[in-house]
Amino acid sequence: MRASETVAIETTAPEQHRDLTDAVRDVVRRSGLASGLCHVMVLHSTAAVVVNETDDPNIGTDISVALDRAIPDRDGWLHDRIDDNASAHIKAALLGPSELVPVRDGELVLGTWQRIILMEFDGPRKRKVHVQLLPS
Amino acid sequence: MRASETVAIETTAPEQHRDLTDAVRDVVRRSGLASGLCHVMVLHSTAAVVVNETDDPNIGTDISVALDRAIPDRDGWLHDRIDDNASAHIKAALLGPSELVPVRDGELVLGTWQRIILMEFDGPRKRKVHVQLLPS
Amino acid sequence: MRASETVAIETTAPEQHRDLTDAVRDVVRRSGLASGLCHVMVLHSTAAVVVNETDDPNIGTDISVALDRAIPDRDGWLHDRIDDNASAHIKAALLGPSELVPVRDGELVLGTWQRIILMEFDGPRKRKVHVQLLPS
Repeated sequence: MRASETVAIETTAPEQHRDLTDAVRDVVRRSGLASGLCHVMVLHSTAAVVVNETDDPNIGTDISVALDRAIPDRDGWLHDRIDDNASAHIKAALLGPSELVPVRDGELVLGTWQRIILMEFDGPRKRKVHVQLLPS
Repeated sequence: MRASETVAIETTAPEQHRDLTDAVRDVVRRSGLASGLCHVMVLHSTAAVVVNETDDPNIGTDISVALDRAIPDRDGWLHDRIDDNASAHIKAALLGPSELVPVRDGELVLGTWQRIILMEFDGPRKRKVHVQLLPS
Repeated sequence: MRASETVAIETTAPEQHRDLTDAVRDVVRRSGLASGLCHVMVLHSTAAVVVNETDDPNIGTDISVALDRAIPDRDGWLHDRIDDNASAHIKAALLGPSELVPVRDGELVLGTWQRIILMEFDGPRKRKVHVQLLPS
């Protein structure tokens, strides 16, 4: 079994949501894992990974807008004195860099409306997503 | 070792918090896992799993109220044009669908005041919770 | 392989962020794990573990301030009638008690600017952090 693989994603806007499910599914299939867990982690501090719906792509936008309202850009954040992306760090910390999805019979176990989504908060950038596989 | 099991939960209100700890503990015991990790994931995009206190059940209510204040219903969300539950999706994405709890000597490793809680944001509904077990 | 270890942390202020990365790295090295996942979980309901940057320590402060703004102390929370720390519980539930970091060649897989951080919301207190290791 191949235990891990890194997927490269290039985001194209300051804020963006990108469906990673197909890319992760390919990694799981190449790995040969039959049963266990799949860990999907973005290796950056101003992006996040969430699990939610993408059938209506507006949900990703709604998540970004809700975070923009709660954590406005340049709202007196200390880190903005050094680098102009404090709000992106705060949003990324709130959502977290990773999600964990079960694998059964070689396939991701997700609900009908669940997908694995990369949330970009400080793009456009090249992002690395690490996928680690663990057997049950 | 039985590697996974699905628990069915029927919520009874639009927003609700339900303590899953006893049900998860039963799955761990049935599995025969001695040491490792237990992954608890709700297979839906408008509910979440958190770890916090339930000894005072008001804490679950406080968490729901705090999210209601930060992400009000029907506050211009795009997804409400298609399905009237955008705020539930946003709240679920913020909390995340899953938690991971260590297992030692066949028992969940939780702090004195920690319990595994299902947060419902779009009930009442039938919810599936997938429990996956991994050996250390 | 030693599968788990508990790290004791004593916080020194009501709200604080503490970089756990070096302590977790030491646990990974002592464990002998070559490839897999490292689960870091605080065993309390008023503290959290996040992954973000600490090179500028202001980021941890910005995260705390953002949560203080969204979830003010004593803002009508029901749990404050019993114990005066409802906002700490809500913040801890939002961030979550644990993070999961891949291990490859015996080392944590983190991005250049990613560190494992304990967020204290109800200090000063003695906190236990459980580190569990799983082979790939």
